[in-house]
Amino acid sequence: MLVQEYFRTRGKLLEKALDKFLDPEDKYPERINQAMRYSVLSDGKRLRPILFFATYEMLIGRKNINRLNRLLPIAVAIEFVHTASLIHDDLPSVDNSDERRGKPSCHVKFDEATAILAGDALITKAIEVLTKLKNRSQAISCIRILTKAISTRGMIGGQAVDIISTRKKINVNTLRYIHYKKTGALLQAATDLACLMNGEEENTTITLSNYALNLGLAYQIVDDILDEVGSFEVLGKAPGGDSKNSKATYPALIGLEQSKKKAEKLLRDSYNLIKNMKNNDILIEFVNMVKERLP
Amino acid sequence: MLVQEYFRTRGKLLEKALDKFLDPEDKYPERINQAMRYSVLSDGKRLRPILFFATYEMLIGRKNINRLNRLLPIAVAIEFVHTASLIHDDLPSVDNSDERRGKPSCHVKFDEATAILAGDALITKAIEVLTKLKNRSQAISCIRILTKAISTRGMIGGQAVDIISTRKKINVNTLRYIHYKKTGALLQAATDLACLMNGEEENTTITLSNYALNLGLAYQIVDDILDEVGSFEVLGKAPGGDSKNSKATYPALIGLEQSKKKAEKLLRDSYNLIKNMKNNDILIEFVNMVKERLP
Repeated sequence: MLVQEYFRTRGKLLEKALDKFLDPEDKYPERINQAMRYSVLSDGKRLRPILFFATYEMLIGRKNINRLNRLLPIAVAIEFVHTASLIHDDLPSVDNSDERRGKPSCHVKFDEATAILAGDALITKAIEVLTKLKNRSQAISCIRILTKAISTRGMIGGQAVDIISTRKKINVNTLRYIHYKKTGALLQAATDLACLMNGEEENTTITLSNYALNLGLAYQIVDDILDEVGSFEVLGKAPGGDSKNSKATYPALIGLEQSKKKAEKLLRDSYNLIKNMKNNDILIEFVNMVKERLP
Repeated sequence: MLVQEYFRTRGKLLEKALDKFLDPEDKYPERINQAMRYSVLSDGKRLRPILFFATYEMLIGRKNINRLNRLLPIAVAIEFVHTASLIHDDLPSVDNSDERRGKPSCHVKFDEATAILAGDALITKAIEVLTKLKNRSQAISCIRILTKAISTRGMIGGQAVDIISTRKKINVNTLRYIHYKKTGALLQAATDLACLMNGEEENTTITLSNYALNLGLAYQIVDDILDEVGSFEVLGKAPGGDSKNSKATYPALIGLEQSKKKAEKLLRDSYNLIKNMKNNDILIEFVNMVKERLP
């Protein structure tokens, strides 16, 4: 199967499920349901749930889209959490971003209060969706993995450090912490959840978890580099946003050349962790996708 | 056992558990952990978790504080969710309240971004805490009850309608919806969770659920009345806040006398639902506490 075909079919499967699990726009109270649908059903890359699918299909040894049906609540929950984090990150008092995925951010399209509630509701709905899994013991394990990824030990921790670090001198360890937690934590949850659902041993789970963390950090470093030297087209948003927001970046801290070397090293590490696994083509593609963004 | 003694001992048990389940202030990232502790460990009345304890102890037929130990994750989760809702409600773009429980609100003491994240983290931690229950099937049922109470069908729904209704003419049905959802939903979750943990039949669960909903609506109507005619001491905050925020109240919609009658009727209904149950003294006390606030 062509890689593009894989992304297209799994993306479509996910879009349908997202639509199904969200309440309709005309359900009372309409405005909050509209805000949730607006932010979730926008033109996202869906990297996290697709990484979840791809990891699972690698582990079961074949690409079979029918085997993904029982996993849909998990994929949907991952994307709900990701969207909630984007909505709250974009708020004026946080990163103050007016645009997201080429459209007005949730608080611009609706209002700040609705955006705050929409984020809260999506975190809550992500968990609610996971309680629909038939095996209640597996459901609890999934909820543990996802809440850990969201928590102060995960994405919220990364965002909290990001906030207090803005306009301050920070070192590369702190920046690595921010990137790992803000981006890596949910990618790691995606591979962890795939391993859980296939009953993998700790060994494989940790290996894939490290693959995801390295990939996430590389992605962020490339984003930092593009913010300095990239174009709107490659970055998907206006470059220069980090310096505008007085945010530390890898190029600012260790220079452009070292940042590139660091990203390449992380991508090599990521690749090496999975290169001997069978049916690893989509996971290799994730590495290549990040590599290709490097200027 | 004296009623005051009951509230004191169960309150103390809860305070200890809240402290234990929260991360210490000096744990990295410190600021978010400090904000969570600041808002949770303030001088709250703890009505919701104590209603949960009281319902459970009524159902098992005796007051035995040792029997509450295995229920602590649930009581803590209820209070975490309540605190999260207060933090987000107080934000400038929502209700814009600078004070809470006699202290600066979370976003005033810290900052808006930290307050948004602290609310997110407390919702997440509430769920995480519930996954610690030994019986995984019960844990899932608890998570379903709590996420429903938080969701757009519960507290978030109530707050969403509240926001869009501000500075608009609304009817009493809409105001009842707001009060039921914003206050009633979590009180209802408290009695539902107690019934679940004692394996009650649907019958009892629904009766107690209605007791809690009536109690919550009565509490809100009394709050509306006090906002019009009360003092700082009785209300616990400056009166007149609702008209300042252009919020509809029962007295504004149906008049002071009718509002009092409505509250008294709801409290009678609440009482009638539990009056024939054994060991109902603390649940009766909840009704009396609301009645005594009536001017």
